[in-house]
Amino acid sequence: MPRRAAAPRPPPGEFELIERFTRALPLAGAGVRLGPGDDTALLAPPPGEDLAATVDAVVEGVHFDARFTAEDVGWKALAVNLSDLASMGARPLWALVALAFPRGTPPERLEGVARGLGACARAHRIAVVGGNVSRASELSVTVTAVGAVRRGRALLRSGARPGDLLVASGTFGDAALGLAPGAPAALVRRQRRPAPRLALGRALAGVARAAIDVSDGLVQDLGHLCDESGVAAVLDAAAVPTSAAYRRVARSLPDPLGPALGGGEDYELVAALPPARLARALRAAARARVPLAVIGRVERGSGVRILGADGAERPAPSGHDHLRAPRPL
Amino acid sequence: MPRRAAAPRPPPGEFELIERFTRALPLAGAGVRLGPGDDTALLAPPPGEDLAATVDAVVEGVHFDARFTAEDVGWKALAVNLSDLASMGARPLWALVALAFPRGTPPERLEGVARGLGACARAHRIAVVGGNVSRASELSVTVTAVGAVRRGRALLRSGARPGDLLVASGTFGDAALGLAPGAPAALVRRQRRPAPRLALGRALAGVARAAIDVSDGLVQDLGHLCDESGVAAVLDAAAVPTSAAYRRVARSLPDPLGPALGGGEDYELVAALPPARLARALRAAARARVPLAVIGRVERGSGVRILGADGAERPAPSGHDHLRAPRPL
Repeated sequence: MPRRAAAPRPPPGEFELIERFTRALPLAGAGVRLGPGDDTALLAPPPGEDLAATVDAVVEGVHFDARFTAEDVGWKALAVNLSDLASMGARPLWALVALAFPRGTPPERLEGVARGLGACARAHRIAVVGGNVSRASELSVTVTAVGAVRRGRALLRSGARPGDLLVASGTFGDAALGLAPGAPAALVRRQRRPAPRLALGRALAGVARAAIDVSDGLVQDLGHLCDESGVAAVLDAAAVPTSAAYRRVARSLPDPLGPALGGGEDYELVAALPPARLARALRAAARARVPLAVIGRVERGSGVRILGADGAERPAPSGHDHLRAPRPL
Repeated sequence: MPRRAAAPRPPPGEFELIERFTRALPLAGAGVRLGPGDDTALLAPPPGEDLAATVDAVVEGVHFDARFTAEDVGWKALAVNLSDLASMGARPLWALVALAFPRGTPPERLEGVARGLGACARAHRIAVVGGNVSRASELSVTVTAVGAVRRGRALLRSGARPGDLLVASGTFGDAALGLAPGAPAALVRRQRRPAPRLALGRALAGVARAAIDVSDGLVQDLGHLCDESGVAAVLDAAAVPTSAAYRRVARSLPDPLGPALGGGEDYELVAALPPARLARALRAAARARVPLAVIGRVERGSGVRILGADGAERPAPSGHDHLRAPRPL
């Protein structure tokens, strides 16, 4: 008797894992005509809006290590992408998730990643509409996120003009200090569960002229904004907001402002706007329940000058390179 | 003198590599308002159409090995995604590319990947609108591809009905045999430079009732189509088209039809359609310059029955699992 081909069962592994992974994710949402399971998702884009699309990966040993729970990894993989949507002033819609992991990875670990990713997706009302699984040497999660923004209202990096004020959300340096052994829980949480500033980004669209999210470090990302806008920035180091937990840890560092200026992964927003719009921006931030501080100004020229508390120029901190493993502090 | 912060130059590594990588890619195209370089791309979706979105990864040691050139890797990473768009009947628009590679990867290898990817993108008029680079233990390329399809015309897996004919494009088993040592160049090319059946997919939209692209193997993928449609398939093994190069190699195998039925990565399309539409489908395929063969029929029930040349049932070949390294032949 031939082995009946009537049941060409999917090999275990792949399809079962996909099933277990997707169970923890929100698969339906606005504009989702067809979610995961076919050759592609089918999506109805909102009429009259542009789409904002970005891709980012988190890789074991590079962006996270054994101190991260699986849930942290899943949360962060999506959150860093939503931060890019936030900095454009876009509202998030859909994500696609490519998961890679070594043979023998416990299914529970992958389910943990899915739970963290699902929690972040639900918190921001985004549907996971597609995905892929593959073997690899280490765990990684590559997320493509798509959002929508009213045509002509996106916050580009290139819109800053001399005379603009620079404003920044939240606090800086927490995520970098959250990597240090024995760091306070509040700082660890900033490192592992970043909160994308989506409400603020949308509130600033139409108010600010330019924005960027701070993934690589405040000075470095402000430098990108200056480069794209063809302007210079003067950063008032003493005005850069820090948290109480940050200040308690950082006061023993040789450069107590170093992590705030140079540490990456805070996923705060920095925006440039004309002084006449500051009051509107502050009201918008209050509605979004996010603190907003003036941290400097835009001038003619190029590059970022940093003024210390004494008003004198101070040196730049070192930056953050996603091609390198997290630097030890 | 403080080190002047005026030039917080991006660390070498990351930004220079991105620059070198993107130079080989088509970055502009239909609907691209803003390509790579800002926090997200900005894209204008075509009015009145749905978007088709998919993500797929190729990983060193899993989907390719040292016999692949860097150009092959880049080509295949995009082509496998375009095949998913093809099977939905969508026309390709945009891609986002997440590249991961080990420290010390020669920049020339990454440029080779970009050239292969760029060649495939140009061949199919798709713009690369965003990307990401990261360290990892092995080279991998994760591509998200987005296309457009007229609302209600997408070719789902779930539309097949009892009485439909099953048609298949091109030839089967070539890519699997292309992995064998000393394989003829024509078969090697099928493995390393798959040609997504985009023109055929679009031509079949509105003609066929269901379609799938064959990445995991004909019997296995036909099984997915049957599962999603709630039907059974009878596959006429002798009608499955094979190439002359395939037949020369396969005649010495214990099961000469094994790779054609079970080998993955041919990226041909299989579609189900009512017999009355066969002539239209054949004309559509002729316009797309792709051979189309009737390989079986859809019945009530579930699963795939395979009939051998003698009309008797034959056993199923083994499938293909993307979580496993390419099986030796």
